[in-house]
Amino acid sequence: MRRIGMLIFSRMTQLDVTGPYEVLARLPDTAVELVARTLAPVRTDRGMQIVPSTTYADCLPLDVIMVPGGPGQQDLMEDEQALSFLRRQAAQARYVTSVCTGSLVLAAAGLLKGKRATCHWAAIDNLALLGAIPVSEHVVLDGNVITSAGVTSGIDFALRLAAILDGEQVVREIQLQIEYDPDPPFDSGSPRSAAPETVAAVKARLAKLSEERRALAERVGRKLANS
Amino acid sequence: MRRIGMLIFSRMTQLDVTGPYEVLARLPDTAVELVARTLAPVRTDRGMQIVPSTTYADCLPLDVIMVPGGPGQQDLMEDEQALSFLRRQAAQARYVTSVCTGSLVLAAAGLLKGKRATCHWAAIDNLALLGAIPVSEHVVLDGNVITSAGVTSGIDFALRLAAILDGEQVVREIQLQIEYDPDPPFDSGSPRSAAPETVAAVKARLAKLSEERRALAERVGRKLANS
Repeated sequence: MRRIGMLIFSRMTQLDVTGPYEVLARLPDTAVELVARTLAPVRTDRGMQIVPSTTYADCLPLDVIMVPGGPGQQDLMEDEQALSFLRRQAAQARYVTSVCTGSLVLAAAGLLKGKRATCHWAAIDNLALLGAIPVSEHVVLDGNVITSAGVTSGIDFALRLAAILDGEQVVREIQLQIEYDPDPPFDSGSPRSAAPETVAAVKARLAKLSEERRALAERVGRKLANS
Repeated sequence: MRRIGMLIFSRMTQLDVTGPYEVLARLPDTAVELVARTLAPVRTDRGMQIVPSTTYADCLPLDVIMVPGGPGQQDLMEDEQALSFLRRQAAQARYVTSVCTGSLVLAAAGLLKGKRATCHWAAIDNLALLGAIPVSEHVVLDGNVITSAGVTSGIDFALRLAAILDGEQVVREIQLQIEYDPDPPFDSGSPRSAAPETVAAVKARLAKLSEERRALAERVGRKLANS
């Protein structure tokens, strides 16, 4: 039985986890665990509560570890309990992965030093402060590290990871089962395609969060560089 | 405060709910409720447990009601408590909506009589048995009823609904925030694009479920026709 573990935490963005979960839980002989500090339901950034299936302490060795993002990612970047769980699992996992700003948590754990990696477009610059090499792509592979861009990119990431694990045909069938034939009504999903005023509006809304995240990445990055 | 309610139930497909939730919970002045029979965590078809925020009995009047799909949809189609909750909410809601096989539940509640509607590709034929007019599109609008195709189509549905509710610019910003710039590694998300052997394999895997669902739709359809 293959074991895929996804970290879940307060104020995470739930679709970062639920998108990949829908794909990866359909793989043959695969258990997907939702791992948290305790078994108490986790309140995500927009209110939905998800129940963990295991804890840092009880989680068995994982074949794949995945870290999602969301505003709560900031709490994890200096949370020694979470970071040491990630280091311990990463030391033996086949793949170390992230969706959205989850890559900043992997980086804070020292797992992205010198690695090419991606992140949500609005936070990707912070990767360089944490010793990684930012690459603006949907999904970035570097050795056994696979990182993906913001939120819904997690679905594309999961399909690619699934193909690496079990081959294309299994994934083509999963894609058909989840009817993933995307048809967005607008072309506004990336800062490259969105209108400049849309990008400016979103950046303005995220300004305070972005500033906090940058200060945190600088602080954590200095600690990493000195360690 | 606008109130959007999503039914959640045992053995539902979680991404049917979590995809639209991620979009709709970002709308201004909007509360998204997850409504179930009780407040106990709901175990979805691949194991993830989600906590309801309210119950059928306590749920305030909804502006939008949404029903997701998944294997557990069959239990709801003859569940008078669920169906009467849906009828009561639909009688005053601005929009009555579904993702995936959730449309079969709306139809079982008598809410799709003579309406154009869609469903997961593998279950869409059942709509006709329940008095609706099946239309193979990602998202189908008929009056105040909006139905969508399988699983991930719920994200496209939610973006379209959001644009109806709050206008294009709000939705363009949400699409950029959730970085919805889909990049599936394969072209296998619809029976029109997937290879014939992929369609055959998925149909074979779903054969037993499809047969049960058809027998149920016939039985419920007869009851509806006689009522």
